[in-house]
Amino acid sequence: MEIEVLQEKLARALTVVSRVAMGAKATLPILSNVLIRVEGNKVSLTATNLDMAVVDYVPVISSKDGVITVPARILAEFVQNLPKGEKVKIKVDGNKVKIKAGKYSSTINGTPQDDFPELPEINKEKSVAYKMGVDEFKVGVSEVIVAASGDTTRPALTGVYFNTNENVLYIAATDGYRLAEKRFIKKVESEVAAIVPTASLQEVLKSITDDIDEIEIIFDDTQVRFRLGELEITSKLIDGTFPDYRKLIPENTDIQIIVDRAELSRIVKMAALFARESNRVICCTADAKKKVFTVSSISNEVGENESEIDVEVNKDGSVKLDSRFLADALNVLDEDKISFGFFLKPAPVLLTNEKSDDYRHMITILDN
Amino acid sequence: MEIEVLQEKLARALTVVSRVAMGAKATLPILSNVLIRVEGNKVSLTATNLDMAVVDYVPVISSKDGVITVPARILAEFVQNLPKGEKVKIKVDGNKVKIKAGKYSSTINGTPQDDFPELPEINKEKSVAYKMGVDEFKVGVSEVIVAASGDTTRPALTGVYFNTNENVLYIAATDGYRLAEKRFIKKVESEVAAIVPTASLQEVLKSITDDIDEIEIIFDDTQVRFRLGELEITSKLIDGTFPDYRKLIPENTDIQIIVDRAELSRIVKMAALFARESNRVICCTADAKKKVFTVSSISNEVGENESEIDVEVNKDGSVKLDSRFLADALNVLDEDKISFGFFLKPAPVLLTNEKSDDYRHMITILDN
Repeated sequence: MEIEVLQEKLARALTVVSRVAMGAKATLPILSNVLIRVEGNKVSLTATNLDMAVVDYVPVISSKDGVITVPARILAEFVQNLPKGEKVKIKVDGNKVKIKAGKYSSTINGTPQDDFPELPEINKEKSVAYKMGVDEFKVGVSEVIVAASGDTTRPALTGVYFNTNENVLYIAATDGYRLAEKRFIKKVESEVAAIVPTASLQEVLKSITDDIDEIEIIFDDTQVRFRLGELEITSKLIDGTFPDYRKLIPENTDIQIIVDRAELSRIVKMAALFARESNRVICCTADAKKKVFTVSSISNEVGENESEIDVEVNKDGSVKLDSRFLADALNVLDEDKISFGFFLKPAPVLLTNEKSDDYRHMITILDN
Repeated sequence: MEIEVLQEKLARALTVVSRVAMGAKATLPILSNVLIRVEGNKVSLTATNLDMAVVDYVPVISSKDGVITVPARILAEFVQNLPKGEKVKIKVDGNKVKIKAGKYSSTINGTPQDDFPELPEINKEKSVAYKMGVDEFKVGVSEVIVAASGDTTRPALTGVYFNTNENVLYIAATDGYRLAEKRFIKKVESEVAAIVPTASLQEVLKSITDDIDEIEIIFDDTQVRFRLGELEITSKLIDGTFPDYRKLIPENTDIQIIVDRAELSRIVKMAALFARESNRVICCTADAKKKVFTVSSISNEVGENESEIDVEVNKDGSVKLDSRFLADALNVLDEDKISFGFFLKPAPVLLTNEKSDDYRHMITILDN
């Protein structure tokens, strides 16, 4: 095996691919290697942690066929440290991987590909595919992923649920205390209902670079593949049933307040300081007479806190929330003004952007 | 006690002072408080961790005398979150510290000052004082502190040694494996020989702001005080004897190579990758015939590495070094070209900038 390749092309591919290898479990040492395969002038770099595999293709100046696996971390760090513009030659001699670039040279001990896991293939017969802009993908996934659960005893809640309803593709996530839903693609032909692990989506988000405009998402029964230019990230789906969440989201709330997002963030942060030792409970109150929205918190030990925002409101009401959940939601909502809606009866709070109606974020209230 | 003060003035002072309080040991809870003292229109904020005390003065709009201690972290975070330009009113009622700023208000439970430690005073009769530009101070301390030891069983090596020799003030630090010395002030009147804890110096470095040009350093027999405008940081000195290091630094070396610092940093970093599993040993070799300087490393497990730089050299020679020590030194040397000097006999390497002669960095070599 032999390749000659530009430093920046190789460094870039190694950055993405080695991240997956370095995050793999140490119990199977071969997973910390990257597989380099040269086949007819096409060079692929592959890494997998068994839940997820990533493949990237590197344009080469010249090459000779062959295949080897190399420790990902040291290869990536060595190549990243080489000067830009340098031509890197890699030549395999037995299991010795010889790398030379100008006055820099090194030999890394490789391993034959025999023990490297088989890569998952997408079942094309049973697949559905969607295409969308990467910016919308990035924003949407970030808005939803925040509500996913970290609790692995309920696997279905640890992912993001891609689902279609009346020819619209939605994504949703919930940890049982809060729920976020984004309308993802307005008009789609084929149906899907699949739970994608948050770790895989986070890897996809990290791998998006400025020069890529479009992402392709392909599902079969058990897997999903994200295609970003030459880069492919394939992940297992989570086997489980996502809650039938759609009917849980209310159309309207009793009290609805339009409020400046940055200002609400600020006073929630202040209230959170005092709520640290009291289970993060903060109290949000609407006062119709004074036309103010108040956020307050009390800690027996530390002290208490209260801040007001002037708002338009014509009903009195009050809810108690987990300050972290509210802060997380305010962090992903993206318009300057947002709608904070709640009920007079004990029911979740509904947060949306003021103008756009494609994102809904629900938070369970705490006992009064 | 009552004060009215601009948010940005108070937030700024709290940032510095609360850092010391938050770093204090949890065994004495009062140390996590900041002492606020109002005396005739002068408001001071004080924190101490017993090794070090910091006092800052805040200009106020109006005030009434009094004194209280308040949990530093929550006070600092609350004030930092308030909008800039806001006037903050603090009023003490019993032990309740009431803070109001526009529509934001909170009450923090304070503690009377009774248990707050006495602040160290400098013995003016026995003191010596130096003044210098903060930029020189910052650079010099950063260049030297890197060589200080983290091993608390040899306390004298965990500090930076301020010492005078022939009317010049020097600072030096060594961990027994490397030694760094900086000529600090060229002409001083009074003598000093004092070891300042690195933690205190790091606190001083962090507290330097752009609007301060000069630093005053005042020593008595047991303490040092750093004065930055209105801010005073007072620290205990380390009780111990610093090695008589001056005679250990060679005037000349057998082989001296002028080399590009960035390029040497790069190849040391690459060699370090392969030296991780072999005690960080890298080998630096001068070849007079080929006119190259080579840095190489070998790991039985991972592989090996070699990089060259073209240099002017007329003697062959070779030394083995700890890659981390060399990387640290290259990181604090600041000219584009540096001098790498070493001996044909087993003796330390001497690193200096190419042109300026005020900084010397010695590294012990490893067995061949």
